Amino acid sequence: MNFQPLTPALVAAFEQIVGEAYVLTAQRVEADVYADYGRDHTEDLHFAPDVVLRPANAEQISKIVRLCHENFVPVTARGAGTGLSGGALPIHNGVVILTDRLNRIVEIDERNLQATVEPGVVNEVFQNAVKEVGLFYPPDPASKGSCFLGGNLAHSSGGPKAVKYGTTRDYVLNLQVVLPTGEIIWTAANTLKNSTGYNLTQLMVGSEGTLGIITKVVFRLLPYPQHNILMLVPFRQEEQAAEAVSAVFRAGVIPSGMEFMEREAIAWSSDYLKIPLSLPEDIKAHLLIELDGQDMDQLYKEAEQVYGVLERYDVGEILLADNATQKDELWKIRRNIGNSVRYNSVYKEEDTVVPRAELPTLLKGVKEIGQRYGFKSVCYGHAGDGNLHVNIIRGELTDEEWNVGLRQPITEIFELCVKLGGTISGEHGIGLVQKGYIGIALHETNLQLMRGIKKVFDPHGILNPGKIF
Amino acid sequence: MNFQPLTPALVAAFEQIVGEAYVLTAQRVEADVYADYGRDHTEDLHFAPDVVLRPANAEQISKIVRLCHENFVPVTARGAGTGLSGGALPIHNGVVILTDRLNRIVEIDERNLQATVEPGVVNEVFQNAVKEVGLFYPPDPASKGSCFLGGNLAHSSGGPKAVKYGTTRDYVLNLQVVLPTGEIIWTAANTLKNSTGYNLTQLMVGSEGTLGIITKVVFRLLPYPQHNILMLVPFRQEEQAAEAVSAVFRAGVIPSGMEFMEREAIAWSSDYLKIPLSLPEDIKAHLLIELDGQDMDQLYKEAEQVYGVLERYDVGEILLADNATQKDELWKIRRNIGNSVRYNSVYKEEDTVVPRAELPTLLKGVKEIGQRYGFKSVCYGHAGDGNLHVNIIRGELTDEEWNVGLRQPITEIFELCVKLGGTISGEHGIGLVQKGYIGIALHETNLQLMRGIKKVFDPHGILNPGKIF
Repeated sequence: MNFQPLTPALVAAFEQIVGEAYVLTAQRVEADVYADYGRDHTEDLHFAPDVVLRPANAEQISKIVRLCHENFVPVTARGAGTGLSGGALPIHNGVVILTDRLNRIVEIDERNLQATVEPGVVNEVFQNAVKEVGLFYPPDPASKGSCFLGGNLAHSSGGPKAVKYGTTRDYVLNLQVVLPTGEIIWTAANTLKNSTGYNLTQLMVGSEGTLGIITKVVFRLLPYPQHNILMLVPFRQEEQAAEAVSAVFRAGVIPSGMEFMEREAIAWSSDYLKIPLSLPEDIKAHLLIELDGQDMDQLYKEAEQVYGVLERYDVGEILLADNATQKDELWKIRRNIGNSVRYNSVYKEEDTVVPRAELPTLLKGVKEIGQRYGFKSVCYGHAGDGNLHVNIIRGELTDEEWNVGLRQPITEIFELCVKLGGTISGEHGIGLVQKGYIGIALHETNLQLMRGIKKVFDPHGILNPGKIF
Repeated sequence: MNFQPLTPALVAAFEQIVGEAYVLTAQRVEADVYADYGRDHTEDLHFAPDVVLRPANAEQISKIVRLCHENFVPVTARGAGTGLSGGALPIHNGVVILTDRLNRIVEIDERNLQATVEPGVVNEVFQNAVKEVGLFYPPDPASKGSCFLGGNLAHSSGGPKAVKYGTTRDYVLNLQVVLPTGEIIWTAANTLKNSTGYNLTQLMVGSEGTLGIITKVVFRLLPYPQHNILMLVPFRQEEQAAEAVSAVFRAGVIPSGMEFMEREAIAWSSDYLKIPLSLPEDIKAHLLIELDGQDMDQLYKEAEQVYGVLERYDVGEILLADNATQKDELWKIRRNIGNSVRYNSVYKEEDTVVPRAELPTLLKGVKEIGQRYGFKSVCYGHAGDGNLHVNIIRGELTDEEWNVGLRQPITEIFELCVKLGGTISGEHGIGLVQKGYIGIALHETNLQLMRGIKKVFDPHGILNPGKIF
């Protein structure tokens, strides 16, 4: 890439577009705060932007991007910075566009069960807003309290409810996008079905900010499920926990959550949160199973079916959460595993995904590879989707072991995923840190097609350069 | 396009690839039969292929396509020929590839609720095969008894169940595709989630055979819903029927079918099928509402909720189908509306789609435009999705009125769709016959992106040329 440096004239032009108060530079902002714009939740990586802009709307973003296009200056869009693959890191410096001021819920259309929102809205804020009118937006990544919908779109984020309700991409009807050349388009229509030309919407979702900057999104919504049941099921054998996942589906029940946590994952998180949890010595893993729906009688029937399946395995005492506080605590423990791992140690998180019945084989393989190469991992994730988050703990590993030595075992883990019909990222994206491994999942022909598409959208290659491939 | 004519040398090469018996030409096949390869279910259009090939597998298709790519010969893939937009018509002649020999259900994976199938499998054959092991493949276009899954993928076909379960694209995990240059790729992985590079799968689905020829597909499946309730609801005012659709969803019920039929649609179809149906004079339209699930008690509760909503409208006597035969008959009437219209008259079918609450406005607009321009239309469709099939009846219209005079009113209908947040095709595709109208739905920038993508996949433009844009 022949990128050009940011000139004072360009900075002045940006000030004209967004107003001086919204142009942040290393000189104008406290060092700590500014440094944060070059970080996300991925390991301990940092890349400094030349300038950080906080535009108010699509028109301003269009003008910024057009200038960057004309001047060959890299542009990276950034949401809340909670990404786990380094997708928002400005590795070629240049301009970072913060979407935090595009934070309006433009419309909740109760007649059509749709909502139009901006990308800087926090996932949980949006969930709560639609819930207030009886509607349901299911995607709920662990970071839902802070992550932005824009970042969710960049990776098609999932979360526990994806097993029943799908990921972010399943709720997107239409996107307003600023293209890397500055044009503003809408990708589709506000309809549940669309067979009118190529699906630019789904091409944009999951493209990790490399094809355009999303400035508005029309989501479809569901009626809010009024009831749920939550149970925590302890297993004496890890692999049985993974096996039981598939058995529940084969019994005809589709849970709204089906989370796997190995012993250490749940122990670290409950310690971190100081929520006491009985954890007998012989328990090796847990499944957190949620059922939801509009009718409590129906849920009890389904819960009976699940119990029927679980009886076939070597399980401990099942904890049936009997009030909202207990449910919240259990989910809090699940959602804070990532934070507790981060609190304990630097780590690398691999977002492995396989067909769900292959999960026991994957888990066994990960542990075997870890033993062979001498690293410890904490595994947990969305077992109903076959999506296992493998957290490799730095512990006492040297720089050399951490930065170079892990490449071979990670390669082997990913090769195992692909062999089992899976791939190397289920919901975190490729971003920067998995880029070196993408050849394991995708053939060169696929990558050539993707590079070709990138070139069609972004002829100067300015948008989030150096990511994915 | 600089296409080259088919040479005898190429025909000989095709014979080498697929075997002489599978190379069909006008000389070798009865005229009637051969002519059919140049037709589909779209109006009365016909374009003759130079040669029709019946390959057995992806490798043969790859060799054929590579030769066509090198020699600039157009190639059009064809399934069962039930398309309604002219998508499979070889308008530049050349080679037609029939997919009828790629008709294997390769694997039904009960552990993972997935199946791998070839594109020449008939939709209903596949549905029945998975049902036998308790699994459910929901997409069910009206032509399900004859249409191929490959064609369903080309347009992301829907059908009545789409309102609850989504369209074809919502069940596709992974595709094996022969690219227009002859390479064979898999687009993704066999996983429920995937955040590994651009979504080539969803780009391929709905691309109407212009980006590649699908040779295998991995579908996700659901547990088969064991019970259903079907009711036929007569309305004295068409617009109230359309209004009630939205009201049912707002009451928190998601039906598995929500079909709108205006009086003439249901009358023509029951006459055509010779299934007697009581149709009082004051009834102007019907809704056919289906509820499904695993538990009959639950369905009765939902039915009560639906009745509660319907009470607010001016409805006639609701027919609750009380056995399987009656249910089959009602669905048969619904599915044969298209055939009965075709039986009565040449017609143009417009596949309009809007946000569901806008359906009354769309319907009113269509009738008003018809009155103004002097044509009759029969309207029916998937009201739960806001997808209204507008059948413009030729009747006594002259050639001039039919071929030229209708352009303006059709333009107005489509403009109304777009104004209401909708678009010009929900599930039939753009193909040939809607191509002239695509500018109403998509801006030139969107079309430029699509043309750019087409060029990345198909640098010589040989695959299904002249379609969509």
